[in-house]
Amino acid sequence: MNYDDFFSDALARLREERRYRVFADLERLAGRFPRALWHSPDGPRDVIVWCSNDYLGMGQHPKVIGAMVETATRMGTGAGGTRNIAGTNHPLVDLERELADLHRKEAALVFTSGYVSNETGISTLARLMPNCLILSDAFNHNSMIEGIRQSHCEKKIFRHNDMAHLEELLRAADPNRPKLIVFETLYSMDGDCAPINAICDLAERHGAMTYADEVHAVGMYGPRGGGQAAQQGAMERVDVLEGTLAKAFGCLGGYIAAKASLIDAVRSYAPGFIFTTALPPAICAAATAAIRHLKTSSYERERHQERAARVKAVLSAAGLPVMMNDTHIVPVFVGDPEKCKEATDILLAEHSIYIQPINYPTVPKGTERLRITPSPYHDDALIDALAEALVDVWERLKLPLKARALAAE
Amino acid sequence: MNYDDFFSDALARLREERRYRVFADLERLAGRFPRALWHSPDGPRDVIVWCSNDYLGMGQHPKVIGAMVETATRMGTGAGGTRNIAGTNHPLVDLERELADLHRKEAALVFTSGYVSNETGISTLARLMPNCLILSDAFNHNSMIEGIRQSHCEKKIFRHNDMAHLEELLRAADPNRPKLIVFETLYSMDGDCAPINAICDLAERHGAMTYADEVHAVGMYGPRGGGQAAQQGAMERVDVLEGTLAKAFGCLGGYIAAKASLIDAVRSYAPGFIFTTALPPAICAAATAAIRHLKTSSYERERHQERAARVKAVLSAAGLPVMMNDTHIVPVFVGDPEKCKEATDILLAEHSIYIQPINYPTVPKGTERLRITPSPYHDDALIDALAEALVDVWERLKLPLKARALAAE
Repeated sequence: MNYDDFFSDALARLREERRYRVFADLERLAGRFPRALWHSPDGPRDVIVWCSNDYLGMGQHPKVIGAMVETATRMGTGAGGTRNIAGTNHPLVDLERELADLHRKEAALVFTSGYVSNETGISTLARLMPNCLILSDAFNHNSMIEGIRQSHCEKKIFRHNDMAHLEELLRAADPNRPKLIVFETLYSMDGDCAPINAICDLAERHGAMTYADEVHAVGMYGPRGGGQAAQQGAMERVDVLEGTLAKAFGCLGGYIAAKASLIDAVRSYAPGFIFTTALPPAICAAATAAIRHLKTSSYERERHQERAARVKAVLSAAGLPVMMNDTHIVPVFVGDPEKCKEATDILLAEHSIYIQPINYPTVPKGTERLRITPSPYHDDALIDALAEALVDVWERLKLPLKARALAAE
Repeated sequence: MNYDDFFSDALARLREERRYRVFADLERLAGRFPRALWHSPDGPRDVIVWCSNDYLGMGQHPKVIGAMVETATRMGTGAGGTRNIAGTNHPLVDLERELADLHRKEAALVFTSGYVSNETGISTLARLMPNCLILSDAFNHNSMIEGIRQSHCEKKIFRHNDMAHLEELLRAADPNRPKLIVFETLYSMDGDCAPINAICDLAERHGAMTYADEVHAVGMYGPRGGGQAAQQGAMERVDVLEGTLAKAFGCLGGYIAAKASLIDAVRSYAPGFIFTTALPPAICAAATAAIRHLKTSSYERERHQERAARVKAVLSAAGLPVMMNDTHIVPVFVGDPEKCKEATDILLAEHSIYIQPINYPTVPKGTERLRITPSPYHDDALIDALAEALVDVWERLKLPLKARALAAE
């Protein structure tokens, strides 16, 4: 039995489909974000990162770094065990209180990642409700799909953000059956938002529970950074809010916030929570510092939105096919996986601009794109340089500019 | 539909079975390990931690804290995205090289936790081998069981460390079918080790692949801390070595090390790797510092073994029913879940000693125990105080002391 062949063949398949990925070796530079050092095959080079999910640059905020450094110095680097054995460290207890307050819920529970919080959170919740039916938005993230799969519950997928379809599925279901509606509040590849109040209306009418993934919204929307549910005035209507500490809060980890009994049940039954080492105290303290800062400071949120709007305006004015939305995500349409990859290769090699190509399976085939994420720290000069570089690449690869794209329709 | 009832009922079931867990709120104190601050309901109190999985106290090592502090200051707190999007930071690349070298393998891949490395690592590997049969030790950890379950491959469980049973299962299987033998090298609740060379002999004879979980052994065994496989002279015979950065290395995260093509295939196909934010640069740098230190310093390993041996000797001499083994784990038999919990409550409240009760489902019913993990920093006075406290508790709860236990047989 030649086991190597299984793995070489699997890699060859990816290469044939042009889906083989090479990771760029980057070195972040605190205080200089979005500048980073790219350890290229020819040695280190300065680049501008235009695709970070450290959306607000909080990963370099002095308060956040300060909390991490101070806590590591005082308490050491690791948690020392699972939550039960030795890992419930005091900064983690503080963090969970902070998160419950952020979302105005009774309690919160922290996981080692947003991925794990969805995977083990959804599967545990659904398993605790006998004969539960899960209603899932068609565009939900892989971590939610895995959570649903692992619950072994029946699931129905509703067309993305399609309330008529969701209602149809709810109507068709047994009224006495527990139901869990699972959706994201802000979809990260298109930048569109869920109609949260409309979903909650349907949930209330049909006696369903709601679970909302806020990972691309917490910290960035709502008056205190409570997310899209807060922004849309629906925070108290959603039963379970899931979020991340790794994007707008600049650290690592994920969480859910909900009523105390629900949180306690997940805490007590979720294998992906029980049997894993807790987050280090220094990470918890840093995340708490970021959340606290963004609860009272609106500067980052306002500047973030203003920068995103400016990027969209400048790229659109340059004729680039920006896929419009009302959020901080700036997708630029390519529609071809090879050219998408080639575009980002040229941007990095010749323009020192780091953007990742977004190809299938992350987005449907034929909708390949660049996904640009402006931060409060991308200034006008960087935006102008980005537009010039993109126009250069679009012309060289003969990609349709907007005027031409419209003319061709 | 009253959803709260599902969760309240689930919690009531746990309470009835005496399985409801309360986490102690601890504050680690760098430089004073194993001392910690317990945030008790009556205010903060000094306690001695006797059940940390920061086995060597590396979480408070100045080199490790120094690396974390220096890197956080220079690069910020978070990774900024998935490995593909923006998260392949330079310290992570260094860490993976260090791990490959530690295990003398071509490559290594880091995950956000040891749990995730087993869960997504095993399921991805097995799925890449058509019609794979998994042979799994009966005592394997929950994360490995979840990985096997999620692979949807057929599995056969062999009795714990029973080579005759494993051979029987291998013989009965189709010789042309891919087979994956999954086991731990050191079982953390009993402290016994797998006969790694014997497993590899069987694997070679029957054309099977081997996957070994080394989480309770890396850093602590083998001349450079390569683990039990290194200790038993079998490191190059095991195909995939899985380990953690969260125990002997004092940080957070997990990894696998193997041939380059296998690692590249897992990197490219594992959902729990692809769709999650990478470990922060500061965590990676801290882990690398711990690994490097333990590659050349044997002091911690030797002192650790010496301390564990002393704890076993002192507790045994006091008549306590130590469950003997050749490793650093010191299980003390209780055999009753209520008394196990009560013993630890008294230890904490009256002796300021923090040890967690180990009850079902972590161990089989009737084998409830205290699990004591001495570190290089538990001195003679602490060991004597532990023995005295345990004897007091044993007498008060009328638990059998060893002499009496033997006499009763």
